[in-house]
Amino acid sequence: MEDVRKKVEKWIFSKVKDAKAKGVVLGMSGGVDSSVVAILARNALGNKALGLILPCESDPNDSEKAKLLAKKFGIGTKEIDLTRVFSSLKKLFPEADRKTLGNLKSRLRMLVLYYFANKYRYLVLGTSNKSELMTGYVTKYGDSGVDLEPIGDLYKTQVIELAKYLGIPKEIVEEEPSAGLWKGQTDREEIGVDYKNLDLVLKAIEKGGTGEFDRAVVDKVKEMIKRSEHKRYAPKVCELS
Amino acid sequence: MEDVRKKVEKWIFSKVKDAKAKGVVLGMSGGVDSSVVAILARNALGNKALGLILPCESDPNDSEKAKLLAKKFGIGTKEIDLTRVFSSLKKLFPEADRKTLGNLKSRLRMLVLYYFANKYRYLVLGTSNKSELMTGYVTKYGDSGVDLEPIGDLYKTQVIELAKYLGIPKEIVEEEPSAGLWKGQTDREEIGVDYKNLDLVLKAIEKGGTGEFDRAVVDKVKEMIKRSEHKRYAPKVCELS
Repeated sequence: MEDVRKKVEKWIFSKVKDAKAKGVVLGMSGGVDSSVVAILARNALGNKALGLILPCESDPNDSEKAKLLAKKFGIGTKEIDLTRVFSSLKKLFPEADRKTLGNLKSRLRMLVLYYFANKYRYLVLGTSNKSELMTGYVTKYGDSGVDLEPIGDLYKTQVIELAKYLGIPKEIVEEEPSAGLWKGQTDREEIGVDYKNLDLVLKAIEKGGTGEFDRAVVDKVKEMIKRSEHKRYAPKVCELS
Repeated sequence: MEDVRKKVEKWIFSKVKDAKAKGVVLGMSGGVDSSVVAILARNALGNKALGLILPCESDPNDSEKAKLLAKKFGIGTKEIDLTRVFSSLKKLFPEADRKTLGNLKSRLRMLVLYYFANKYRYLVLGTSNKSELMTGYVTKYGDSGVDLEPIGDLYKTQVIELAKYLGIPKEIVEEEPSAGLWKGQTDREEIGVDYKNLDLVLKAIEKGGTGEFDRAVVDKVKEMIKRSEHKRYAPKVCELS
């Protein structure tokens, strides 16, 4: 865990330097992934790591958790309430279902992160983990619309281990994972399997030996990986020569 | 030109089919790039190609041009005025300069395109050309936040030739190129060189022989290509194993 911590912190520091950027900005949801990234960024860059707390029809408890974490670890934050902007956005789309609205919300947050990235010449850090990136459980150009993915090679279960190691409070570590795109959403329900089992299957798929797992689950996960490929690459260009 | 037209149309059709999508959506600015893409998409997919006209503190003349083009070529459109949403966004960022606001506007349009992509199970077509993509003259996760880039392998000067071939009206083809992110913006001023010369330099850089060009211009263009690399690839992940 100490090796992982050091490696990610060094990587953040060197990427910022390479890009001649002045720091980093990230969204802090009060969840475990963004809490881990915020701490690592703070360790790497001190007060040049800015955590944005972006409530948007979300549970006020989430913002509180993010603030408490920031205080405990000395992370600089700014809070910007997106409720009003989001409500004017929703007026444009009266027919939107909750999933589409969730995607809009995620993209709206990206827009705000890049506003501050532009303003301060910062890079935007993503907070997606490997389980999410592999299965495509991210909003294209929303939460995955970032410059760097510091924990993108750690499965969710590994992020949780790292969170414990870093001393992140129990309320955050033990909470049911949720993308928070609508009230009561849980990742488990949406993905159809919990992270413990998902990560075992993902690791098995990576290694090429899924014999011991339920065939239906393996097939479903493989399908998710395949169907979300477009989210992991730059847009395809029609090659003409 | 006929070969290029056919090739791009076939490509759009087959990519949509591969993705099991039902059609495409794109933003129509009234400019030459989006006009070309709109026509090719219409030819490939008929009424499953939707052009969105998204005025946002922009010249009403631009929307008019887009509508006239759509009418001439039988392209289905929807117009959504973003002025109000944009104004509530701006209230969040009273200090934003015009460039930052321009980027916000571009990202806001992306958000609207994906709303319709989500709603109809469509793919989002980009309208960036090769000159823009190579030099990074695009907004990350804004106008370059798309699923497919049909004219991404055509230099701006080639797009203009194709536009003439397709019968796009003179008012569109001959207009001074502008990303339209603020009033009076021209690409020439922002990039520092006109497309005719830029494309010659870009082609020379691609082929590896820039001897005949002004050294300062070549160096500047090379620097633009290098500095915008991050816009052409998916975000970097910190690799841990």
